[in-house]
Amino acid sequence: MASPKEERPVAALLVPDIIALLDESPGDVAAETEELHPANLADVAEALPRDRLAELMRALPADRAADVLEYLDEELRSELLEALSPRHAAELMSRMTPDDRADALEDLEEDRADEILSEIGGEARGETERLLAYEPDTAGGLMTTEIVAVPEASSVEVALENVRAAARAGRKEAMYAIYALDATGVLRGVFSLRELLAAPPGSRVTDIAWHDVVSVPPTADREEVARLTSKYDLVAVPVLDGSGRLLGAVTVDDVIDAIVEEQTEDVQRLGAVEPLEAPYFQASFWSIARKRAGWLVLLFFAELLTATAMARYEATLAGALALVFFVPLIISSGGNSGSQSATLITRALAVGDVELRHAWRVLTREGLQGLALGAFLGAFGFIRVTLGGEPTSLALVVGVTLLAVVITSTLVGATLPLVFTRFGFDPAIASSPFVASFVDVAGILIYFSLAAWFLT
Amino acid sequence: MASPKEERPVAALLVPDIIALLDESPGDVAAETEELHPANLADVAEALPRDRLAELMRALPADRAADVLEYLDEELRSELLEALSPRHAAELMSRMTPDDRADALEDLEEDRADEILSEIGGEARGETERLLAYEPDTAGGLMTTEIVAVPEASSVEVALENVRAAARAGRKEAMYAIYALDATGVLRGVFSLRELLAAPPGSRVTDIAWHDVVSVPPTADREEVARLTSKYDLVAVPVLDGSGRLLGAVTVDDVIDAIVEEQTEDVQRLGAVEPLEAPYFQASFWSIARKRAGWLVLLFFAELLTATAMARYEATLAGALALVFFVPLIISSGGNSGSQSATLITRALAVGDVELRHAWRVLTREGLQGLALGAFLGAFGFIRVTLGGEPTSLALVVGVTLLAVVITSTLVGATLPLVFTRFGFDPAIASSPFVASFVDVAGILIYFSLAAWFLT
Repeated sequence: MASPKEERPVAALLVPDIIALLDESPGDVAAETEELHPANLADVAEALPRDRLAELMRALPADRAADVLEYLDEELRSELLEALSPRHAAELMSRMTPDDRADALEDLEEDRADEILSEIGGEARGETERLLAYEPDTAGGLMTTEIVAVPEASSVEVALENVRAAARAGRKEAMYAIYALDATGVLRGVFSLRELLAAPPGSRVTDIAWHDVVSVPPTADREEVARLTSKYDLVAVPVLDGSGRLLGAVTVDDVIDAIVEEQTEDVQRLGAVEPLEAPYFQASFWSIARKRAGWLVLLFFAELLTATAMARYEATLAGALALVFFVPLIISSGGNSGSQSATLITRALAVGDVELRHAWRVLTREGLQGLALGAFLGAFGFIRVTLGGEPTSLALVVGVTLLAVVITSTLVGATLPLVFTRFGFDPAIASSPFVASFVDVAGILIYFSLAAWFLT
Repeated sequence: MASPKEERPVAALLVPDIIALLDESPGDVAAETEELHPANLADVAEALPRDRLAELMRALPADRAADVLEYLDEELRSELLEALSPRHAAELMSRMTPDDRADALEDLEEDRADEILSEIGGEARGETERLLAYEPDTAGGLMTTEIVAVPEASSVEVALENVRAAARAGRKEAMYAIYALDATGVLRGVFSLRELLAAPPGSRVTDIAWHDVVSVPPTADREEVARLTSKYDLVAVPVLDGSGRLLGAVTVDDVIDAIVEEQTEDVQRLGAVEPLEAPYFQASFWSIARKRAGWLVLLFFAELLTATAMARYEATLAGALALVFFVPLIISSGGNSGSQSATLITRALAVGDVELRHAWRVLTREGLQGLALGAFLGAFGFIRVTLGGEPTSLALVVGVTLLAVVITSTLVGATLPLVFTRFGFDPAIASSPFVASFVDVAGILIYFSLAAWFLT
């Protein structure tokens, strides 16, 4: 994606005004910032000197401060929640949506989180503890429990009254999908607020509900939730326990965040970096270095095999020094075509265009791609070596090697993501550098065995 | 992302039943499939033999068939719309949402699209033509014109009545955000259906609307729309013309599709493949080959420079043949560390964590990363060469080269995406293979000049 418009600098312009207000009449801060979207007020808060941030939060009404907290950068939010008194922190957090509250607590030191949690009142506290029990990257960890559910026998008027009551209570999420339950809490159907508003007066919710409901268990991976949301154009995905009882719902705004985070992880893995888990400038220098060093060192050791392989062919090399000039060309052509295959298949697996059962079809296709592309590059290689004044035998070795290396590489590049998926790993660890290192050794062995055979 | 649950096989199980119904009592198809989500019915339609697909569509009521059409795979949809009579195609398409209708027409041959368009009635036709005039990857190309807008002086009761009327008319999109306009159609505020339902009776929409509205022009890139949706947790982004008049809105379901497509393009570019513009198995063999060959050939020619560079040092090489054993190790270490930097910076630019104004900060950071990682790999290299029984001078050359190459590569890898962004290109063309080829030549020059200097 391209670079975004720069809104933060605009937020930065407001900072002096906010500081002046905090100094002179903190009571006016709320009214002066009332029209700002909470996301923008969070931008302003992030641009404030750290010691003024807690002051700003104290100057805002609790509801508004809680809104800002939901949009605040995670690291800063944790810092702020450490700086406030546990009671004040609990007061703000109790006004956050249950899923965001659980997320915010998860980022804190355990002792601090427990302190704040013990200040949060009865029901909200139990609910938060239940949400905290789920893994953060699962449907349970993403879901909100603030949903609108009605008995399946209700009239549409009662359902609408429930929605209105939830809206008036200032609840913010998951009211565009409404759930119909039986007496034991089992989900029997779902309907949209649009369908509710369109329903003829006097009808029952069971008449307007869809009964073939798309749902997930709380353990479902966030990728699965994202895929269903996208496939069915959902505004929320209901989360059911093993008996079909409704636990909560994952809303589309959290799905979008999950998609973007998941994609960042995939892209970083594809570039041979362990996922950073923080924005670039917020991740510490040494944490980034560690997440890169692991792969670099692993690939370095794999690549050491190329030195061993070449040393085996020292005699061949000494007899035809010009052979070595084409080593980088050959191994990089293998690496590039292998990277292409790995990238195409990894992405196709991620979006569901390719599944494991297509493995043979994928390998046939990629093998033939390797044949076509390899023949093409082989011909170029042959011509280049001939034009360089080298003997035709060498040109032939380079050309045939390129063909063989490109076929090998497309097959390896296509196989690795499938194998990783098969064994439950993320296919994206078949990164470009990984595939390239894998095929470098193969390339050198093919090249020098062909050379040893042809040229002697 | 990991592999998805396999729903298509489930759809495939329904196929024999549907075929039997089409043969024996086509009149019952509608009732028998009534409870299926249109996305699932589209899966069934995709699994049918091609010649039965049009039959199924004819057996469904027009509204339902239009729903299925919206979820149908694009290629198949185009095929179907070519197979139906222009009048029947127009009848179905007039029931699609305006944005999906325009998208479907865009995929057809121009003559066929014109034929169908001429069968579509007055207002819908003009609307479709207006939407077709926008580029498909812009806010104008993604937006729907079926939105709910009310005069800013309206009471909340009137606004709710408008929403109900839209819902009863079977309109499907963009009613969770409602727009308040002045007499000339200029957008004055926005409020959510939730806020409308919570509003005290008798209030005016201007009292509940937010006036600091996030909006885009029709020319805005879909990435910008996606970024705003994610930042502000929007269900729809209003699209305004140059005078601030409301043209339509981009809804969150289309934003999710845009995010996923955009991400597929980025990942493919990062793997040195021109974006395929179709799912893996649907893209034709030769179209994929072409989209790979371009980059492969370009990188091949870049890599030819390595042969030229090495030939220049033939004398040095002949004097110390062991030098060549470490060429792949050195250039791949450069490629890997450069890929990491390019990937990190490209993704950080895409999600807005890094902007162009951070260029110096990025380069300093990546240069220091290169120093740390290069020192690490250099030490490993020195030890390995020494253990291999080679002279310390060679070990020193390899170690120092690794340090210099890794620093160069991280700087190059970080610079390229910034430069591409600066000149209006997608930073993702700084792919791993691209960066690797770029730094291979640099690696060889550094290595052999150090060797020529140290070892003679």
